[in-house]
Amino acid sequence: MTAEYIKSVVKTVPDYPKPGILFRDVTSVLEDHKAFSSCISLLVEKYQGMGFTKIAGTEARGFLFGAPLAIEMGIGFVPVRKPNKLPREVVSESYELEYGMDTLEIHKDAIELGDKVLLIDDLLATGGTIAASAKLIRSLGGEINHAGFVINLPDLGGKQKLSALDIESYSICEFEGE
Amino acid sequence: MTAEYIKSVVKTVPDYPKPGILFRDVTSVLEDHKAFSSCISLLVEKYQGMGFTKIAGTEARGFLFGAPLAIEMGIGFVPVRKPNKLPREVVSESYELEYGMDTLEIHKDAIELGDKVLLIDDLLATGGTIAASAKLIRSLGGEINHAGFVINLPDLGGKQKLSALDIESYSICEFEGE
Repeated sequence: MTAEYIKSVVKTVPDYPKPGILFRDVTSVLEDHKAFSSCISLLVEKYQGMGFTKIAGTEARGFLFGAPLAIEMGIGFVPVRKPNKLPREVVSESYELEYGMDTLEIHKDAIELGDKVLLIDDLLATGGTIAASAKLIRSLGGEINHAGFVINLPDLGGKQKLSALDIESYSICEFEGE
Repeated sequence: MTAEYIKSVVKTVPDYPKPGILFRDVTSVLEDHKAFSSCISLLVEKYQGMGFTKIAGTEARGFLFGAPLAIEMGIGFVPVRKPNKLPREVVSESYELEYGMDTLEIHKDAIELGDKVLLIDDLLATGGTIAASAKLIRSLGGEINHAGFVINLPDLGGKQKLSALDIESYSICEFEGE
């Protein structure tokens, strides 16, 4: 019921960012307090008691859900950012987009050996961003086997891609037929 | 005491992003649950009961504090973003940086006439980002007279600049001598 409500609040924008694409816009969830706080409650319910020591979220929409979840779960939040945004020593990981490449960075001292990290983002599509983030966290000695999302687009294969990397994904709602 | 603790957790990075600058790095606050949740509690204490209907936060670090605050205060969150990030109809505002210009955007339907908006960002320096954000919110009929920050750099004059725009600023801690 709650997940159905959240799904009903997501706005669909046709032909964005290019013709033929149905863009699932999560900003309408943020603007609706009931939907936004329900997202955080559902993620707490799913992940509490599993021994996570940190939450990592990817710039920028992952910050919107990861930061409140870290507050609620009583653990720290680690931002995974675009290049040249983090001021201290970082590790970097480049990954392929549909056209071209992108790079993500994380502070070297943000993850300690044995940290059990939960990755959070707004939307799971092909899984490229989360795969790159997981590689960064693992390179620093962190354990990462779970990733949580508000929306999953199952036709784009992100769940399978992450599963092959031993990462179990969960989403509050799904939109099929993308 | 709490504010002193938060200030002690902020890391200072010398010569970033260029020689002679002391960069105040708020990511260390996010990683420390006690410091991060205390920031949100102090902001709730400051702003609750004042009749705010929405919180707006600027990309990307404003999301980190504005989103949890919106959850705690029981109101919606409106992201103020860099160009070409928001999928629906936007209004845009360009503003001067030390070198060059930057632009911010907000969804046209995110603010309704009479909305009483609280602006949140991590750090107040010259106030340019907040001034541009306030202009966008006012252009849509929203009321904006308060902006809250984790850190203020008083020597850079942001508080005075915002005050001239009828925006009262509050920060949890200050670093002088920038």
